[in-house]
Amino acid sequence: MKSVDTEVTTSSNHTFEMLDNIRIVMVNTTHPGNIGAAARAMKTMGLSDLVLVEPKKAIDDESIARSSGATDVLEAARIVPTLDDAIEDCGLVIGTSARSRSIPWPLLNPRQCAEQSVLTSKRQKVAIIFGREDRGLTNDELAKCNFHVHIPTNPEYSSLNIGAAIQVISYEMRMAIELSSKGDDQLWGVEWDRDLASSKELDGLIEHLEQVMIKSEFLDPENPRYIMTRMRRLFNRAMPDKVEVNVFRGILSAISKKFN
Amino acid sequence: MKSVDTEVTTSSNHTFEMLDNIRIVMVNTTHPGNIGAAARAMKTMGLSDLVLVEPKKAIDDESIARSSGATDVLEAARIVPTLDDAIEDCGLVIGTSARSRSIPWPLLNPRQCAEQSVLTSKRQKVAIIFGREDRGLTNDELAKCNFHVHIPTNPEYSSLNIGAAIQVISYEMRMAIELSSKGDDQLWGVEWDRDLASSKELDGLIEHLEQVMIKSEFLDPENPRYIMTRMRRLFNRAMPDKVEVNVFRGILSAISKKFN
Repeated sequence: MKSVDTEVTTSSNHTFEMLDNIRIVMVNTTHPGNIGAAARAMKTMGLSDLVLVEPKKAIDDESIARSSGATDVLEAARIVPTLDDAIEDCGLVIGTSARSRSIPWPLLNPRQCAEQSVLTSKRQKVAIIFGREDRGLTNDELAKCNFHVHIPTNPEYSSLNIGAAIQVISYEMRMAIELSSKGDDQLWGVEWDRDLASSKELDGLIEHLEQVMIKSEFLDPENPRYIMTRMRRLFNRAMPDKVEVNVFRGILSAISKKFN
Repeated sequence: MKSVDTEVTTSSNHTFEMLDNIRIVMVNTTHPGNIGAAARAMKTMGLSDLVLVEPKKAIDDESIARSSGATDVLEAARIVPTLDDAIEDCGLVIGTSARSRSIPWPLLNPRQCAEQSVLTSKRQKVAIIFGREDRGLTNDELAKCNFHVHIPTNPEYSSLNIGAAIQVISYEMRMAIELSSKGDDQLWGVEWDRDLASSKELDGLIEHLEQVMIKSEFLDPENPRYIMTRMRRLFNRAMPDKVEVNVFRGILSAISKKFN
């Protein structure tokens, strides 16, 4: 229809290539069918990078059936042993969350999640993490994220299937591009001079900081409480660039040399 | 979680009753499983009014299985012989469309569809019509609609399952209400557990950090370059709360004690 022609024209006026930089990560998935549903949901919206962290069962006929022709996404899916392997090259990591947190974490709705992701994806990899069908993500897994995203649901019935959740998140990614107007494509409102630190680089900084905190006897490894979680949350929220991380690590190294 | 508590509180601050006035109409559905998936998708977002126009097969065990507990929506579903019966009491009728039309029709994206629907639902019934799995809606059926809605998809692969389509449309309905009167008074989208540090407290932290950077001989006061500016930018961006600033200052004090 004219309307669909319009849609298609609209679409082709945008570049959707950045969607290649947006990765869907599924952690410890129980049902292979859900992996197929995820592949289909992703492909309908133009996403293709699927990473599976320790799936309980391998991709099988059920996955292929549910993927309904999105088999290329299934075939290209990477299986990795740990979440760190899945996100180490990502500049932005967002975890889906619906459970109680020990301390609050910056929370986005799916629309904000998509806007943030699409912006970042123009220059760097982005990972959206989905947890187990029954228990979601652990606190440790959620603490690795810059932000959390929560899909609003009916409080009396929030049984959102993981495939449906991936459909909603992927749909918002496509909408963010469809609706994006040129100009506001800058993460901090200005052209930034450096790339964001990767998740792995940020982990390196946090670990380095922890060592110094222990050496200085500020942190008792026997009784860390939530101190490191708060530090991790602070740095995740700031989304440091590579130079900022390097400066900080330089400071920590200089400090360590001075310890008696 | 705090965030979910917030979500729930947020939600209960809104009235979602108007969702009772938004009807999902499925025309000539072939697979009973899709009717179950529709019920589940609707209920997760708070919709409950499902009308089936001449389904090819009756609601069956497959429907109930796929509805995953949203059986109340299935049991309440009305089966009618014609589309007119399904929409006669509706003030706004929107048809999902993806096929070429003989003449163009006012087209909404799912977000505009939701805004329009929620607005109208405060006073009148609204119907969103979904067509056959294979052929969608006929021209005559689409001509009965005030507007058409098109879910943007990947032009190379637009195989959006009808349950997924209903999930996206229903999600947008809920989002339209969530965002309509949501007081965006939460900096990070959740109830934060601490106040933000004051500008003075932040200055105190930066100065303290600078002293340690100089003592550790990382920073040359004679030639500071832009290092402190970058540090200041990083902490300003993170907008630390009072506890985070105190923890950091505690670390710096502990470090200073260790210097030889």
